[in-house]
Amino acid sequence: MAQQSYHIAVVGATGAVGQKMLETLADRDFPIGELSLLSSSRSAGQQIDFKGKSYTVKEAKPESFEGVDIALFSAGGSVSKALAPEAVKRGAVVVDNTSAYRMDPEVPLVVPEVNEEDLKAHKGIIANPNCSTIQMVAALEPLKAAFGLSRIIVSTYQAVSGAGAVAIDELKDQAQQFLNGEDMEANVLPVKGDKRHFPVAFNALPQIDVFQDNGYTYEEMKMINETKKIMHAEDMHVSATCVRLPVFTSHAESVYLELGQDGLSVKDIHEKLAAAEGIVLEDDPSTQTYPTPLSAAGKKDVFVGRVRKDPDHDNGFHLWIVSDNLLKGAAWNSVQIAERLIQHNLLTI
Amino acid sequence: MAQQSYHIAVVGATGAVGQKMLETLADRDFPIGELSLLSSSRSAGQQIDFKGKSYTVKEAKPESFEGVDIALFSAGGSVSKALAPEAVKRGAVVVDNTSAYRMDPEVPLVVPEVNEEDLKAHKGIIANPNCSTIQMVAALEPLKAAFGLSRIIVSTYQAVSGAGAVAIDELKDQAQQFLNGEDMEANVLPVKGDKRHFPVAFNALPQIDVFQDNGYTYEEMKMINETKKIMHAEDMHVSATCVRLPVFTSHAESVYLELGQDGLSVKDIHEKLAAAEGIVLEDDPSTQTYPTPLSAAGKKDVFVGRVRKDPDHDNGFHLWIVSDNLLKGAAWNSVQIAERLIQHNLLTI
Repeated sequence: MAQQSYHIAVVGATGAVGQKMLETLADRDFPIGELSLLSSSRSAGQQIDFKGKSYTVKEAKPESFEGVDIALFSAGGSVSKALAPEAVKRGAVVVDNTSAYRMDPEVPLVVPEVNEEDLKAHKGIIANPNCSTIQMVAALEPLKAAFGLSRIIVSTYQAVSGAGAVAIDELKDQAQQFLNGEDMEANVLPVKGDKRHFPVAFNALPQIDVFQDNGYTYEEMKMINETKKIMHAEDMHVSATCVRLPVFTSHAESVYLELGQDGLSVKDIHEKLAAAEGIVLEDDPSTQTYPTPLSAAGKKDVFVGRVRKDPDHDNGFHLWIVSDNLLKGAAWNSVQIAERLIQHNLLTI
Repeated sequence: MAQQSYHIAVVGATGAVGQKMLETLADRDFPIGELSLLSSSRSAGQQIDFKGKSYTVKEAKPESFEGVDIALFSAGGSVSKALAPEAVKRGAVVVDNTSAYRMDPEVPLVVPEVNEEDLKAHKGIIANPNCSTIQMVAALEPLKAAFGLSRIIVSTYQAVSGAGAVAIDELKDQAQQFLNGEDMEANVLPVKGDKRHFPVAFNALPQIDVFQDNGYTYEEMKMINETKKIMHAEDMHVSATCVRLPVFTSHAESVYLELGQDGLSVKDIHEKLAAAEGIVLEDDPSTQTYPTPLSAAGKKDVFVGRVRKDPDHDNGFHLWIVSDNLLKGAAWNSVQIAERLIQHNLLTI
């Protein structure tokens, strides 16, 4: 039987995540019949190569989605709010990589290794979670399934690429300015649209996204709320501190967790992680083996090391979780959702 | 009455911390009668200026301490083990900035804002705690005193200068190599004497100091054990994850704590921190006000921001604590101990 192929649209094709989506689609040999590369009017007209063929990027409009089977959105929340329903109206299933629909109770928020079954309830839009949330829940789900999970306290070490190509350029420029003995110029981070900007090179900024009324940043609240939704664990205690680092690619996370059982050992945790889908255990203190942002960059998996038992809490453990924020944190998780939609025949509502 | 002056010896005068000790002694207008600058035989013979006068660095030997009132040691644990008792034998009081004596029950481990009274029990040696521990206990003591403190979980964001001048040079070299599109050369970090080395530029290394049998690093165990000793709180639960960043100066810490009371607000925490000695509160989300490694560098205080209440734990709070690791974390805390020894007439055993 000839394999079926699909009409795929990538919205935000010229952005950092859009580019990674195209690389991932090519890498996975995704069954693409037709490919529509879409963007804002500003980026329309650019040429992009995909598998040796050149495509002209077109401005995304409601009618762009006629005949599209799967639309991968990553062009900002306002574009998704305006156009995702238009795409759905025209018969496409949308995988949305913005925060626009993530907490909508009608929209499944999916990390395939964790809650693939939620895909079945979709009504046209599936939300791709926040990058820092995805890698954490992917690593914690096998432990929750085996032992129960009552509590998560996470401190993040996040790459600038999460803030887009302008933030990558800013870090490069600042680092060179510093090495030249010049003042560092800050115009983008911590948050492009916020009032004040600080150098990220040779620094650490404890602000990702804007502040909420409760003193947490929006990034921290995303980790708290999305984790509970994805893991179907409204009663689980989750708290987060999110920090931007002078790192280009891969987020790292220092995660403290409390399991539902006492008496567990590091070996018990290792066994569950080593057997888990999408997780690579890199944890051997005797050979200084642990993941770092540089070691994880360009790879699709979630890497876990530094597994330790809290000396004072029998059910408490520490994990160091690292993954490429543009791949599993964004492009790969979106493409993975698209693959599972096809696999489970979920392209019709 | 003429102010008394003292014979001060600085052991490790040519190192990164030794240099900061001299700057701090000058800055504080410390009452120095005579000044002996000491080092290993390797660095002996160097000339160092102090307050406009040039001093020749001499090799540290037992007899170097004849007539010395206060000896500030920062030349590595083995030097302290060999020579601190010799200095004490000759009548000096030693303030030791290595880990050699920190957990010795006979040796006070002192952060003046926290446990100044422990100085009274000294038998010639006072230990200066680990840099990452000092800034944390300085910020937490006023909260412990007011509300009780049952638990600390900390993730650190530490500067390379804690690993000495070679690590500073390595970060600069690696950053320039990366920006030039060259491979980064790693010979020092994460730990100079350990088997494997990884680039720290544009990366984050979850290893500071060597691994212990329990899977924690020595840096993490220092934070756990020293915190309990300084705060006189053997039953307090403490756990730590220590991470080295591409930052030159200042350690930052994401600290989660559980207080001894429920019902407290961020305002309650702010009030105690704002009134505390040596602490500067920099915490206003509405103006993006929080400390960063760059903003704290070169300053003696401990800066605290991002105070937040755990959404799920009434007695749980988050703090972001930043301080210059070479000043409050090393040189300034040592000089401060020396000042308090004089102030309280504790230079005789």
